[in-house]
Amino acid sequence: MRILGIDPGLRCTGFGVIEASGQRLSYVASGCIRSKETAPLPLRIETLFAGIGTVIATYKPALAAIEKVFVNVNPQSTLLLGQARGAAIAALVAAHLPVAEYTALQIKQAVVGHGKATKEQVAQMVMRLLALPAAPSPDAADALACAICHAHVHISLGALSGRRRAPSTV
Amino acid sequence: MRILGIDPGLRCTGFGVIEASGQRLSYVASGCIRSKETAPLPLRIETLFAGIGTVIATYKPALAAIEKVFVNVNPQSTLLLGQARGAAIAALVAAHLPVAEYTALQIKQAVVGHGKATKEQVAQMVMRLLALPAAPSPDAADALACAICHAHVHISLGALSGRRRAPSTV
Repeated sequence: MRILGIDPGLRCTGFGVIEASGQRLSYVASGCIRSKETAPLPLRIETLFAGIGTVIATYKPALAAIEKVFVNVNPQSTLLLGQARGAAIAALVAAHLPVAEYTALQIKQAVVGHGKATKEQVAQMVMRLLALPAAPSPDAADALACAICHAHVHISLGALSGRRRAPSTV
Repeated sequence: MRILGIDPGLRCTGFGVIEASGQRLSYVASGCIRSKETAPLPLRIETLFAGIGTVIATYKPALAAIEKVFVNVNPQSTLLLGQARGAAIAALVAAHLPVAEYTALQIKQAVVGHGKATKEQVAQMVMRLLALPAAPSPDAADALACAICHAHVHISLGALSGRRRAPSTV
């Protein structure tokens, strides 16, 4: 079962792909889709949408999970982040992937064990869980952590119901 | 030259399609893509994305214009509106349409002649410019007004440069 995790952002959208085989998780790929801050918004949205499409076409995940975002102190930043997240979800549903959503708190609890973990602790735990030789970049780490969180929920639900499914997906 | 105007919103995204033949504008279609407020966000984004895709496949516009949105007093509403707008732009660029953006002020100036026009004045002017038998619904009126605004800019630029193009498109 291959899972794609997305950490949305307009400047940089992190992605992480993992393979969940029973309880065992392994790393497939991760990275960041960047768009030029000086480019017009439709072009930035196009870069993000096409970038996620390429990731899906390349790694063929069966499930997707995306981090829920919070409102920023700057309303204009909230609007930009919202637009990036909307385009990212559009790219996932356009590829017919079921999409689950998790808050940063849920992801930290699933990966580190408590909701107050720092970004560094998340990256360290991602490195350990996926047996990586080094800590991934912060954007990739958050996206991989989101995928790991979804794998945990999925495995738990599979164990409970006797089959693999997620309740909050569409 | 067929133009699609979009007035983005998560509850209801208005669309309006017009045909610009020289200085003459005519009505093609308009309506609203609705999503259930109780549905999960990825499903609402999917409804919006697929709905715009259907409009494009049905009416085959050559150009698109979308209204710029403002930050709301409620940051959560700003985030939701941003996500709807991001998904709408994603649907337009996914169909390889060049996308122009206009503020409400620019649209009102182009359609009514001044930036302080009410929603009713915009709807009345849209009805008159497109020779409609009745005023369109508010959501459809704003989307048609956005398309009319883009037609005006496009015609003006065409007259200036001797060919039809828009500078703010991607």
